[in-house]
Amino acid sequence: MNREIHLVKRPEATPTHEHLNIVEQSNPKPEEGEVLLRTLYVSVDPYMRGRMSDAKSYIEPFQLNEPISGGAIAQVTESRSEQFNQGDIVTGALEWKEYSVADEKSLRKVDPSLGPVTTSLGILGMPGLTAYFGLIDIGAPKEGETLVVSGAAGAVGSAVVQIGKIYGCRVVGIAGTKEKTRYLTDELGVDVVINYKNENVAQALEEACPNGVDVYFDNVGGDISDSVYPLLNKFARIVQCGAISSYNTPNDQGPRIHMQLIKSSALVKGFTVGDYQERFSEGFQHLSKWLQEGKLTYEETIVEGFDQIPDAFFGLFKGENLGKQLVKVADPE
Amino acid sequence: MNREIHLVKRPEATPTHEHLNIVEQSNPKPEEGEVLLRTLYVSVDPYMRGRMSDAKSYIEPFQLNEPISGGAIAQVTESRSEQFNQGDIVTGALEWKEYSVADEKSLRKVDPSLGPVTTSLGILGMPGLTAYFGLIDIGAPKEGETLVVSGAAGAVGSAVVQIGKIYGCRVVGIAGTKEKTRYLTDELGVDVVINYKNENVAQALEEACPNGVDVYFDNVGGDISDSVYPLLNKFARIVQCGAISSYNTPNDQGPRIHMQLIKSSALVKGFTVGDYQERFSEGFQHLSKWLQEGKLTYEETIVEGFDQIPDAFFGLFKGENLGKQLVKVADPE
Repeated sequence: MNREIHLVKRPEATPTHEHLNIVEQSNPKPEEGEVLLRTLYVSVDPYMRGRMSDAKSYIEPFQLNEPISGGAIAQVTESRSEQFNQGDIVTGALEWKEYSVADEKSLRKVDPSLGPVTTSLGILGMPGLTAYFGLIDIGAPKEGETLVVSGAAGAVGSAVVQIGKIYGCRVVGIAGTKEKTRYLTDELGVDVVINYKNENVAQALEEACPNGVDVYFDNVGGDISDSVYPLLNKFARIVQCGAISSYNTPNDQGPRIHMQLIKSSALVKGFTVGDYQERFSEGFQHLSKWLQEGKLTYEETIVEGFDQIPDAFFGLFKGENLGKQLVKVADPE
Repeated sequence: MNREIHLVKRPEATPTHEHLNIVEQSNPKPEEGEVLLRTLYVSVDPYMRGRMSDAKSYIEPFQLNEPISGGAIAQVTESRSEQFNQGDIVTGALEWKEYSVADEKSLRKVDPSLGPVTTSLGILGMPGLTAYFGLIDIGAPKEGETLVVSGAAGAVGSAVVQIGKIYGCRVVGIAGTKEKTRYLTDELGVDVVINYKNENVAQALEEACPNGVDVYFDNVGGDISDSVYPLLNKFARIVQCGAISSYNTPNDQGPRIHMQLIKSSALVKGFTVGDYQERFSEGFQHLSKWLQEGKLTYEETIVEGFDQIPDAFFGLFKGENLGKQLVKVADPE
């Protein structure tokens, strides 16, 4: 039998085990042009929370009593496609199943010579591209400017802080554990790290940004962002990548930001990585090059076991992950 | 004696007569390179409320027990400048005084052949340029798109709705009196006008924007804007020109907008007209041309008497003005 994880109830606030169920189904069979896949790694990402609601969004909501889907790495165990052979490692948006069938058009072969296959879900995948396009295209950082990054130790944030350093910025990171602040300072060379769980963020930010804030790459929204707006310099750019503090808070309220934006002639731009689909190869090239040159590094938090997927997902909202959160489901054969 | 209006107390909420005082001073004398001016018209503008506070902003706060200053039209009564002759009509940022002395460098001659001199404070002045650059540069409207304008019957808004029509947009205006909605519909050709004082704005907007909102030119912020965000189309642009509903509300709270911006990959850009100083002649040329072609029209609300300036200013926050609010202080000689 094949296990899969279904959305069985739409969460109104924080998702828990009552919203996701592991169910058993018989093994699927590939048709012509399809492959049977054995899931190796599953990516859990904050944006998936949005798809669990049925509010209007840029992406279809997950269906009730159907499997969740998202970025994954898998191995072809049976191929009815001319593009893939048995044993190939592939990536794509796959359902949360131990075994799944996928159309050949929805998959991309992973080249293991570029690095560990898991990088295709992290620094060389969606989070890396999100960091690259958000920071470069919206943030437009210039040498000597001050870049503030919230959620700095996550999959996206940890790439952003490093790209910020490559561009010559003074980088201030905000994170929530000692392990994360140490990682950001000691391994990624972030200039100042603020631990929002035990510091007065507004005061710490003011001290950390004596020349104000030019670029704010925001993954979290909420109170933390409230502390950044008053420090915005003229023509500041806010990259609105995520707002994880709001995802589980219906009708989240806070200070209105209109006046701050007018006073500083600042820009806020929301985006999703799909907006840059036509430029993915540009982003991929830059990220691979920096990775090879040692200018870019990454961290993964990997838990093991298909049944650990829900908890790994829930953990994102508690800030448990350092770098990319993955679940290892099986070893390649 | 010369009357002038001083800021005598900084308002924390709505400004009233306790914050402004009319005081008498002896007549000033021009030095070399200066002129003595008789004030003809004074412009009262919502942005002035910001300068009455001493919070960090793009512009210096007004000083306590000193005159307020702002856009005005005046006549030269005594010239010690080679650039200006007695009798010339000029405009510039002048202090709220019946007679004032100004440096020749701070003044610009008004050409009465372009239209009534008052247009230099309205459609051919700061409000017109604000409408032009905000809409064209930030809003970037395209033919067939839906443009929503809040504060649509004000000096800036009424120019924005017309430029939107010139660009081929479906224009939805939001205003607060019957007179204003009639003006917008009958005289400016706005497609749908919503009276926020007696309609359910969220519902009316949804009906008025069956294809969503592509550009939102926001003069008011607050509840009205809250109703616009859920309707934003992918890649919508929000022109954050003003937020008059917040000016008198310290610590104004509302729903956080991060998620709406991410879902629609929308942009919000704050600005002030000064950001476009180097392009003023471009804006001026377009506005004059449209005015001459009859594609652009304007309305003025003019009250008479120097002592009416405070009430005219307070009236802005009650939505009393149709088009540009001016105070006529004297006739030219």
